[in-house]
Amino acid sequence: MRDLVVERKVMARNESVADANRALFRELGAYTVNLISSPGAGKTTLLEATLQQLQNEEGVRLAVVEGDVQTENDADRLAATGVPVEAIVTGGACHLDAAMVRRATQALGARLPGGIDLLIVENVGNLVCPAAYDVGEDEKVALVSVTEGEDKPLKYPALFHNAGTLLVTKTDLLPHLDFDVELLIRNARSVNPQLRIFPVSARTGEGMDVWRDYLLERARQG
Amino acid sequence: MRDLVVERKVMARNESVADANRALFRELGAYTVNLISSPGAGKTTLLEATLQQLQNEEGVRLAVVEGDVQTENDADRLAATGVPVEAIVTGGACHLDAAMVRRATQALGARLPGGIDLLIVENVGNLVCPAAYDVGEDEKVALVSVTEGEDKPLKYPALFHNAGTLLVTKTDLLPHLDFDVELLIRNARSVNPQLRIFPVSARTGEGMDVWRDYLLERARQG
Repeated sequence: MRDLVVERKVMARNESVADANRALFRELGAYTVNLISSPGAGKTTLLEATLQQLQNEEGVRLAVVEGDVQTENDADRLAATGVPVEAIVTGGACHLDAAMVRRATQALGARLPGGIDLLIVENVGNLVCPAAYDVGEDEKVALVSVTEGEDKPLKYPALFHNAGTLLVTKTDLLPHLDFDVELLIRNARSVNPQLRIFPVSARTGEGMDVWRDYLLERARQG
Repeated sequence: MRDLVVERKVMARNESVADANRALFRELGAYTVNLISSPGAGKTTLLEATLQQLQNEEGVRLAVVEGDVQTENDADRLAATGVPVEAIVTGGACHLDAAMVRRATQALGARLPGGIDLLIVENVGNLVCPAAYDVGEDEKVALVSVTEGEDKPLKYPALFHNAGTLLVTKTDLLPHLDFDVELLIRNARSVNPQLRIFPVSARTGEGMDVWRDYLLERARQG
């Protein structure tokens, strides 16, 4: 009972910082996406390929907030693209919260005085906790790789319910798997009929243009 | 600060129930393993294949505690093998705790008056939270699939530090991936030099005999 009261207070505090983040993102001009998936679904590889596709587009200033439980390896890997990256190492926490994202975004804002058009947050690899923590993003983007099983939307409904977009990743592996993409899509739509769904392979580039064009459109609206 | 005090109390309470579970497992005669991995690493498929391999072994009474955030689909799938299964649906919680496992084990004990030799707990798909919650198990068994990336032990060190065994799953997919098994093993051993490591494919059966023999030996010692 007492735990529940504390939990509610933590969530209320997070929500008020998320509101402040929404104001900050507006001020910077940023459309903000929050990438959420299992560990190993390919968030960092997808993000690397996405940054490479978007980097030479005019009028799209990019920035990344990279979250991990331990190590800054992924942040270093993404920074190698030349896009400004701020790393968050959560220690033991299983998700990013609004305050962590706020500090990282303020640091990015200081590095990019001209503003940010597209801010991509890569959350901790986890299908449960990050779904519950609003960081003020414009949309949550869920990733499911085709090696994971078609049932994920049914087993982790909160994420798929709260997400705007689902990326079905690693589609290049489909010939080697017993994976039914249509069943995954049906399961995802049963939880959230409005979900946008893009199948992509960062390795072969298949579908990456559709995802890139979607981000470009949103970034230029901002 | 106050959150931290509550968290410490929750963990202390969990630890005391985990102690009671250890006594219960001893009383039932059960060697207990706690399977932990990302969503989609193949826990349920591996477990299904493991049960099929062990079912006809003499003197090994099996039972399963199956945890999920939502749905009893996996529990139904495992129950189809004929092995007694108790499902835990956590609602939103990102891990099993000792009290949940206690209730499920008591129910299994009532169904199996002759005792249990091997109790397999399938945790919620998550590399972070389940690593911190002792459920009284004899050992945590971590699973990493070869589609996930070699860096997982470095990014989620708590699990690999606390685990006794690592199963490297889906090895049948290796020919289609740029995955360095030796690098994964090096990373895992850098976190935990004592880790037992078994590469397995539930699909082709490769390596399953070694894993089965390991469990048999532990179950018969109990």
